[in-house]
Amino acid sequence: LNFQLTILGTSAAVPYKNRGLAAQVLEVHNRLFLVDCGDATQFRMHTHGIKLSKIEAIFISHLHGDHCFGLPAVLTTLAMQGRTAPMHIFAPKGLKRMIDTIFEVSNYVSPYPIYIEEFDENWFAQPESGFKTTIYENKQLRVRAFPLMHRIPTCGYVFEEKQAPRNIIAERIAQYDIPHTAISGIKNGENFTTKEGFVIENEALTRAPNKPRSFAYASDTRYSAAIIPHILGVDLLFHEATFMHNMAEHAAFSGHSTAQEAATIAQLASAKRLIIGHFSARYTDLSPLLLEAKAVFENTELADDFTTYFVEKS
Amino acid sequence: LNFQLTILGTSAAVPYKNRGLAAQVLEVHNRLFLVDCGDATQFRMHTHGIKLSKIEAIFISHLHGDHCFGLPAVLTTLAMQGRTAPMHIFAPKGLKRMIDTIFEVSNYVSPYPIYIEEFDENWFAQPESGFKTTIYENKQLRVRAFPLMHRIPTCGYVFEEKQAPRNIIAERIAQYDIPHTAISGIKNGENFTTKEGFVIENEALTRAPNKPRSFAYASDTRYSAAIIPHILGVDLLFHEATFMHNMAEHAAFSGHSTAQEAATIAQLASAKRLIIGHFSARYTDLSPLLLEAKAVFENTELADDFTTYFVEKS
Repeated sequence: LNFQLTILGTSAAVPYKNRGLAAQVLEVHNRLFLVDCGDATQFRMHTHGIKLSKIEAIFISHLHGDHCFGLPAVLTTLAMQGRTAPMHIFAPKGLKRMIDTIFEVSNYVSPYPIYIEEFDENWFAQPESGFKTTIYENKQLRVRAFPLMHRIPTCGYVFEEKQAPRNIIAERIAQYDIPHTAISGIKNGENFTTKEGFVIENEALTRAPNKPRSFAYASDTRYSAAIIPHILGVDLLFHEATFMHNMAEHAAFSGHSTAQEAATIAQLASAKRLIIGHFSARYTDLSPLLLEAKAVFENTELADDFTTYFVEKS
Repeated sequence: LNFQLTILGTSAAVPYKNRGLAAQVLEVHNRLFLVDCGDATQFRMHTHGIKLSKIEAIFISHLHGDHCFGLPAVLTTLAMQGRTAPMHIFAPKGLKRMIDTIFEVSNYVSPYPIYIEEFDENWFAQPESGFKTTIYENKQLRVRAFPLMHRIPTCGYVFEEKQAPRNIIAERIAQYDIPHTAISGIKNGENFTTKEGFVIENEALTRAPNKPRSFAYASDTRYSAAIIPHILGVDLLFHEATFMHNMAEHAAFSGHSTAQEAATIAQLASAKRLIIGHFSARYTDLSPLLLEAKAVFENTELADDFTTYFVEKS
């Protein structure tokens, strides 16, 4: 049961050499979730052999073009591929009007339902605790959104694998003559009472399941310690690092972070692992950004176009 | 002084293998004109080494996504590259609302002026003669638009090099002691009267200039003989050929043409050369479409992604 992130674009604002625009595919138990969707995302998925048709839901951080201009083409191509399943899309307010207008002037009606859930001013203004709410879930996964600090309303997202039930130890079934009807309860932590009336503690019957894995996406944002509570202890953190720290003032002004700041967030949030990306086109060689981040948070990697980052079970 | 067409995408509706979506760059005397702009056009220009910044004007045939969804990204990337020159865009009605809405919800204001000239119902309903009007011109080029027959309002475009002035024969200047002040008139066909009062006929002083070259773009459209008067004698005709002729009924129904129909149009319009493109993803091997077209119009070529078609002077 996999948990992996494929990065399709690492460039900020405009394509630069081989760096594409913001788009990432999170795969959880073979189900795909698209996070941001810059221009050409459908092409980049196609090139990399990721099946568009397998996308279950789409999460857009904000409405700057480099994060969402590829979305209309993704949606219409899905229709051409025969999709009938609904698509759920999450985004700050405005995306629905954008998509509706584009489809309307093209005289286009989607053959499958598209549900766009928008985060409006009230959502952004809610008390901190409100951001704990799950915005999307399926059998495997739960997703939360939280506010980033950019020039326009922007969301980060946290994707958390659901806690699996405990694993029953096969030999115990015969040993204690456990009937099928009791299995589900035991997996959920119940003790078992034998026919003879002995109570067997759950821990003697089961092994702990793998820990739920998690991924947090934070792009675009200026340095903001306010995001830390939302991403505490995350296994994999993608945090934008548009600039080096010698441009910290420009970064803050333009609503972006430096490599050092991204690493500081990872450090303070006790993230297990940090990927930095969304690089300014001024940097051809990215190794100084990596060095800068590693000085603060050792377990940092550079985002690389068409690279998959695996989160193993533990 | 070049006149050449680079095709960036040859696929209909969705990307197929290496075939991109509709976008072509016409280069006339080193000035670039973008014709249609499917998803990922900025990437495909970048990959092929065509400078986005050199685009002078953009011509959109219609508002189906495979012909225009790449436009917002092209426009915002141009801004990031520092463009200050105005951009003129031509399209059926609706594009302005699309672009305005996209920019508005992204809270984006273009730093350079974007002028979108739209063809509305009145334009499409005007008398035939109205389509002779030039919609755009610069020193080198004149552009006309004409209606195609698709499922939504769709324009074809004809790009015509302007007639160059006659070339003065250098030796005649000394021979007849022609003053600088007379040169411009002679290039424009005037005779010259020597100080002695002899009239020298223009043809003795000048050579005919090269013939103006022309390119016509017809995509998307079902077979329509009505377009023939607009493209008569064109040097290079791009005509869509989404299907083989055994699908003629489906082609007409969906507002598309067959290879045979494209060739028939080229034949009846006395085009010099035909390029067929906008291929359905059902065709991996395109040679049967080429054969079908060549049976009607020998000088047919297949459109090929990232290929440049040159029109030589004559």
